[in-house]
Parts: sequence; C-alpha cells; structure tokens
Amino acid sequence: MTNKISSAAKTRFKSILGDKRFLDDEQSLVSYSYDATPMYQALPEAVAFPVSTEEVSAIMKVAHEERIPVYTRGSASNLAAGTVPLHGGLVLVLTRMNRIMEIDQENLTATVEAGVITKSLHDAVREIGLFYPPDPGSMPVSTIGGNIAQCAGGLHGLKYGTTKDYVLGLTAVLPNGEVIRTGGKLTKDVAGYDLTKLLVGSEGTLAVITEAILKLLPAPPYKRVLLALFDDMRAAGRTVSKVIAARIIPGTLEFMDQGTIRVVEDFAKIGLPTEVKALLVIGQDGHPTVVDEDIRKIRDLCLEEAIDVKVAQSDDDIDNIMKARRIALSALARMKPTTILEDATVPRSQIAPMVEKIMEISEKHNVRICTFGHAGDGNLHPTCMTDARDHEEILRVEAAFEEIFEAALRLGGTITGEHGVGHAKAPYLEWKVGAAGIEVMKGIKAAFDPHGILNPGKMFAGETRKRVVVRQ
Amino acid sequence: MTNKISSAAKTRFKSILGDKRFLDDEQSLVSYSYDATPMYQALPEAVAFPVSTEEVSAIMKVAHEERIPVYTRGSASNLAAGTVPLHGGLVLVLTRMNRIMEIDQENLTATVEAGVITKSLHDAVREIGLFYPPDPGSMPVSTIGGNIAQCAGGLHGLKYGTTKDYVLGLTAVLPNGEVIRTGGKLTKDVAGYDLTKLLVGSEGTLAVITEAILKLLPAPPYKRVLLALFDDMRAAGRTVSKVIAARIIPGTLEFMDQGTIRVVEDFAKIGLPTEVKALLVIGQDGHPTVVDEDIRKIRDLCLEEAIDVKVAQSDDDIDNIMKARRIALSALARMKPTTILEDATVPRSQIAPMVEKIMEISEKHNVRICTFGHAGDGNLHPTCMTDARDHEEILRVEAAFEEIFEAALRLGGTITGEHGVGHAKAPYLEWKVGAAGIEVMKGIKAAFDPHGILNPGKMFAGETRKRVVVRQ
Repeated sequence: MTNKISSAAKTRFKSILGDKRFLDDEQSLVSYSYDATPMYQALPEAVAFPVSTEEVSAIMKVAHEERIPVYTRGSASNLAAGTVPLHGGLVLVLTRMNRIMEIDQENLTATVEAGVITKSLHDAVREIGLFYPPDPGSMPVSTIGGNIAQCAGGLHGLKYGTTKDYVLGLTAVLPNGEVIRTGGKLTKDVAGYDLTKLLVGSEGTLAVITEAILKLLPAPPYKRVLLALFDDMRAAGRTVSKVIAARIIPGTLEFMDQGTIRVVEDFAKIGLPTEVKALLVIGQDGHPTVVDEDIRKIRDLCLEEAIDVKVAQSDDDIDNIMKARRIALSALARMKPTTILEDATVPRSQIAPMVEKIMEISEKHNVRICTFGHAGDGNLHPTCMTDARDHEEILRVEAAFEEIFEAALRLGGTITGEHGVGHAKAPYLEWKVGAAGIEVMKGIKAAFDPHGILNPGKMFAGETRKRVVVRQ
Repeated sequence: MTNKISSAAKTRFKSILGDKRFLDDEQSLVSYSYDATPMYQALPEAVAFPVSTEEVSAIMKVAHEERIPVYTRGSASNLAAGTVPLHGGLVLVLTRMNRIMEIDQENLTATVEAGVITKSLHDAVREIGLFYPPDPGSMPVSTIGGNIAQCAGGLHGLKYGTTKDYVLGLTAVLPNGEVIRTGGKLTKDVAGYDLTKLLVGSEGTLAVITEAILKLLPAPPYKRVLLALFDDMRAAGRTVSKVIAARIIPGTLEFMDQGTIRVVEDFAKIGLPTEVKALLVIGQDGHPTVVDEDIRKIRDLCLEEAIDVKVAQSDDDIDNIMKARRIALSALARMKPTTILEDATVPRSQIAPMVEKIMEISEKHNVRICTFGHAGDGNLHPTCMTDARDHEEILRVEAAFEEIFEAALRLGGTITGEHGVGHAKAPYLEWKVGAAGIEVMKGIKAAFDPHGILNPGKMFAGETRKRVVVRQ
C-alpha cells in the first residue's frame, strides 16, 4: 500500500530541508533503525530533521502524494518497538524542534515544541516554582512529543495523573499535510470531539504532533518519603489498601519485589535487607503540615503490616530511598544481555494477587522475572532478564508474558499502562478492547490516515509480529 | 438518509421493551420534543425507556437495520438543543438506568448506570467521605450519562477539572448495536486510542453511553469562602491573576458582573451592594491549615484591589455567599420570558477584557446581557434576557452572540466551555476547529456511525440551523 522513496521525492525533501537535514547515508539509516525495545530493528530509507511545523507540513504533503511511510520519533526511548521503521520510508526526527516557546504564569501553561526534552521542561518550570508532574523513567532523554504520543506516566500517576491530564492543546500535522490546532490555554473546551485527548497516546499513527500547550501546577513546597519492608507480598498489598482507605493519596507509592530488591542491593549497596519479600516507597508532597500528618499516618498503617519502616529524616535519606526505586531498571539490566521491561497494569487492589501470579508464571516457564512498579496506580513492571540469542528461551519468555497479559486482564487490568502498544504488543490489543473496539479504532485510523502512511505496522496486528534483526 | 419508524420496527421495539416502555402517543411525543434550550423543539415518532445495556443494544440493532434516527437523552437539561429530536425518529430515555452499581473504596471508583442523577452520586459518595468533583448547575436533575456526553463542568474546574478528568471507563453501544467496554478501574491504560476520552463530550453522536466507571477523591474535610467586591472589572481580573501568581489554586473562583449582582440582589435580598461593578466568590477546600492560610493570603491579595472583602465566618455565611452565585441563573431567568445562557470561554488571564467586550457588544446591539461564571477557568456565562416572540430582537441577540463567540476566539478562547455544540452552536464549530478539524471530526463520526443515525442534525452545520417551533 505504501511506496519506496523515489528519487524525485528525495529531491523534494531536500528542497524543503536542505542537504544537512535530510540524510540517507548508511550510517544514518542504521542509527535510526531501532528504539529502546530489544530485538526489533528495521532500516529506513531516509531520515529528516525538520525545525518547524511548516516544514513538517511540507514533508507530509510529499509523503502523502507519494504514499511514503513516515515514522515520527523523538529520542526513541519507546519500549514497544513503537518507533521502529518497519516498512522503511522516512524517519521524521523532531529533536531539533526543542524550544520552550512560552511559560505563561497567569494561565499556568507551557507552550513547547515536540522535541523538548521532558527533564528540560521540568527544570525550567521548577525554577519559577511550577511543576509538570509526568515523569517517565525516560525523562532525562525522552521528548515531550514522544511522551504525548505514548501518554507517558511515571511515579506520580495516583495523585497527579499522567501526560493526558496535562495536555491542553496541540498543533499537529495530518497525514495530508494539513495543520490542525486543538484546545488552547483552556481548562474547559467542549467544541467538538476532544481531538487533543485522542491524539495523546495515539503513538504517531494519526498525526505528527509538533507543538503542545501543557498545564502546569504550583510546585509542592515540601516532600517526605518512607520505606516499608515486608516479609509477605500480601502484607504489602494490604498496606496499599489501608493507606487509600484512610483517605490519603500519596504523591508516590512504589513497589519492589524480592528479586528486584536483591539485584538493586547487589548493584548499589545501599543497605536494603535482601531477605524481605517486598518493599514499598511511599512519599507525600505538599504543604508541610499535611505532609507531616500524612507521613505519620502512613507510617502507623505500615507498622501494622511491615517488619520495618524507615522514615527519611533528611534530603540525603530521601535521595537514597528514591534512588533504590529509580535505579531498579538499570540494576536489572546489567544481569543479562537482554532486558524486557513490560507494564501490565491492574486495579490498585489487585497488586498482590498480580505479583504472585507473575511469580507463578515465571516459575512455570522457567524464566527470570522481577517485578517493580507503581503500586499506587497498579502499574507494574515485570522485567525479564534474558538473552536474545537464546531463541528457545525467548519463546518461553514470550509465552510467559502472554500469560501475564492474560492474568492482568482477568484481574480487570490492561496490557499496557504507560509504554504503549507499538509493534510488540499489537497482537494483544484485541484481548483488551475486543473485536468491536479494534474495528472502531481502525475506523479512526482510516479517518485520519486513509493511506496508512503514518507509523505503519503499529497498534493493529494486521501482520505477524516480526523481529527484523536481533541486535545483540 | 434516515427513515421514519415503520410499523414493523415499532413491533420489534415493543417486543424488546414491552408496551409500557415504548410510547408513541401524542402526549409522550410532545413531552420528549424539547430540552432546556429555548426556542428549539421537534416531535419524535416514539420514545423508548430501556433498563439495560442489552436492551439498548437490541434497540440499536433495529434502528441500525432500519436507519432510524436515535436521540439519546437523560434529563435533557442541555442548553444547545443537543437532545432535540430534529429528524424525528426514536428518543432513547436512559433515566430508568439509574443504579449506582458499586462504590469501590479500595480503588476509589464508582460504577454507575448512565441514568443516575449526578446529585445522587454526589450524596452517595459524600456519605462515606468521598467526593465526585464535577458539579454542573444542572446536577440536581441532570444525569451522569448526560454529563459525560457533554463533558459537564461546574464550579470546580480550576482545581479539580471537569467530567473528562473523572471518567475511567465506559460501556457504550455502537450505532450497529455492538457493545464496547473502554478503560477500567485504571489510572494508567494506554491500550489503543483513548476511546473513553473520545466518547466524553461526543454529545450522543458516536455511541450510546450506558455505564461508566468514575474516579472518586477523598472528600476535602474543610472549606472556607470569601466575597470580594470591586468598583472596576479590571481590578477583579487583576485579583484573579494575583491569586494564581501567588501559586494558590482555589477550589472555587466565581465571578458576577454588576448586571447580575443587581438582579440577584433584587431577587434574593441577601445584602449584596448593587453599586459595585463586579464581585468574586473565592473558596478553598482541603486540610484546615492549608485552607486557613490560603484564605488569609487570598484576602490580603483581594484587599489590594477590592473595595470590600467579606470572609465567611460560619457555615451560614458560606451558604449565603454561595447562594448568591448559585441562584444567578434563576434570578436572571425571571426577568424576561426567554433566557439564553451561553458559555463563551477564554484563558483565565483574559476574563476582564472579555467581560468588557461582552458589555460593548450588548450595548451595540441593544440587548440585555449579564455575565457571571467561573473566573478560575475562564468559563463565562453571558446570559441574555429576551423574548422569543420578538423576532426582531432575537435577530439582534443572535448577532450579539456571534460577535461574543468571535471575541472569545480572538482572545484564545472557545465557543463553548461546558455546554456543548449541539444544534444551536453547530454553525460556529468551524470557527474554533478550522476546516481541517471539521473534516477530521466528520471522519470520526463516520467511523462510528456510517449511516448517521445517532443524534442527526447536531455538532456539524450540515444543514441550516432551524428553530422548529417557538415554545413561548
């Protein structure tokens, strides 16, 4: 359905971008052939680096006329092969559109280009006492545009929501090159269908997001954190329920299982007791009086179930505790050549049964899976340490993850909480949304992109999932 | 494109619903021929009262096969002729699906049928210390399903957001009768396009929403309110900006202009000084320490600009102040036979210029418009007191509102903040979303509803706007 890039099309792209921002040498093609997902890779035919919405529009007009596949990406920290150019074509890299165009302190909004690094935005607004809550683990490298395309989450989901809750308006280029502007600096806007929220999480399949108006909050002036250790998964699960039942919504409520704790301690030597079965990191932010009260209540609730509770007494203590959680993935990643990080998600009340189920499944398939994640919002990260060169083991890993997705759905959950469907999870989307849901989604896709030129091969399992090249 | 209800179809509907829940006598048809919007009315051919998703599905299968227009409604408190059955057909009344199915205290969710009255849900969750923030003025009569279809707002937009921020999952019947279930008891779910958020605010044009999973919050334990009086609109606007600049997000931040103040005082005799040009009602809720601190800071900021500030010292005081704001519409409505309540919305920083512009426009067209609304989120309600029997005046009223919409857009705002497009505002939707936006929205509509049987005549200005019957 889509075509190769003709030499005439290349000439047109170069006339838009100049020679330096349109590359088709082999090294560039290899550099843009993969993202952060292990085991997926495919060569594009060219790479473009636009610097404005107008350039993106001009590029899309050519791609539309010539039916060229277009793969938009920021830093490509995607974990579901969402930005791998499976059908060749053009990779559209938005990292040079990286201006924070405005921080509006009266309306508490930031207007940014899609290529702004998320952490840069965090830093820029924090300097003036403001706060942009979504903080995916990738945020030191990932872009706002990528975060929006994926509806990125992070550690603040329970109290503050995710990216979708902070996108007020978008500038986006349709597959035919037309530019739409949705929403505005408005909390309330019900003029027509909510295209803003539809584009959030649409994974580059509907339009190219080039600019965004984001909602900001006043920065919480104070925060505290505690660490609770459990000799039983269910006790950790009960603690989460008790905190919520006490009508407390913590700013952070993170979980690590024993496997993760051992690997983190082995890596970082921060004094975590490796004999415990689970730990929770619970933090609160806000007004000092509220934070201190909440932390006291949370500590008391933890003490009913935990074998030990440590309340951070200093900023160093806080950093140490948060570090344990923040480095979990890096610690796990050094164990084996290949790390597969998943994000099956369940209602908060189902965390303990889900973690137990993951352990059971990993044992059954004889694969090593450790689980950590966001207990406050039920978003778990079962992480498999494996080796992509061992095909027999990889098949077992895949079978295990299929069972994990199934178990999450059976507990009222979903196949992905914050990583997206991409290519890797396309075969499972129908399990969550049903055949009728898939049909509706394909209808929406066709309404935006009738020729299927934006990110083909993603979201829908129209084709067999393929690992194009094993990189390791 | 759509057909009349054949007698064969009537027989099928009756076999689904029985004789008592399928009505086509004249009195019933007249009863369901209008909503809360003045000047619009059209007779349906029949009225159905399903009690389950299965019945709705069975009805839609018949309607789909026979291409019968279906107008879904709850209590029809709509203000944009959104539920008027312009093309005849079937009115689907969901008020008998009014069960609160579950309040889940571990996951902080409520699962409800679409016909639950919003205030009933408020009351049910408040009893157990929980809080459902969206509180449209219509909430004593309006249904959750209607609130979702319209993305209803209310007084808490600034701090708590609107209906879209509280809908986690939906059960909805597609025009062909298929049932989809979106989302779940999940803060994080990025499996495919966000159909939940797309259906919120879709005004009954994409699917029939039958059940919803809603997010709840712990109820704030304490609240306080103050009233600030200004002899100058701009001073009120500056006060709003100063409060936000002080990094305070009030729970309520309401505005009334002099015209509204006079009418309210004349109606309710609550001691409002009628010589002031504007008033703000500013409230905070939450932890007592925070609330008291915030109210003190807000009072000090108000005193820099206001001629008087009254901080409520008792629950009676609070009720009195909130009453002034809550009864504004009723007070205005008694002035003249016809009240047209609009909801042009601007970025918060543009409230003062917008109110001035409204005054200028109303003077130019010699019509009486008073303005009150939600200053915190820029959602204003310019309200015209007129007489539908006076055709010449009505033309001037329409010309004035067109200019008001235009002015709102020029200030970065929108044509509707919380009332919806419906039929009344369909001609203006393109002004906000552009021709490309309209095309995309029509594509989405066609993907869900290829035969256009759901709520035809709404959202898109495919036909001339028509007032079918003048009721007064």
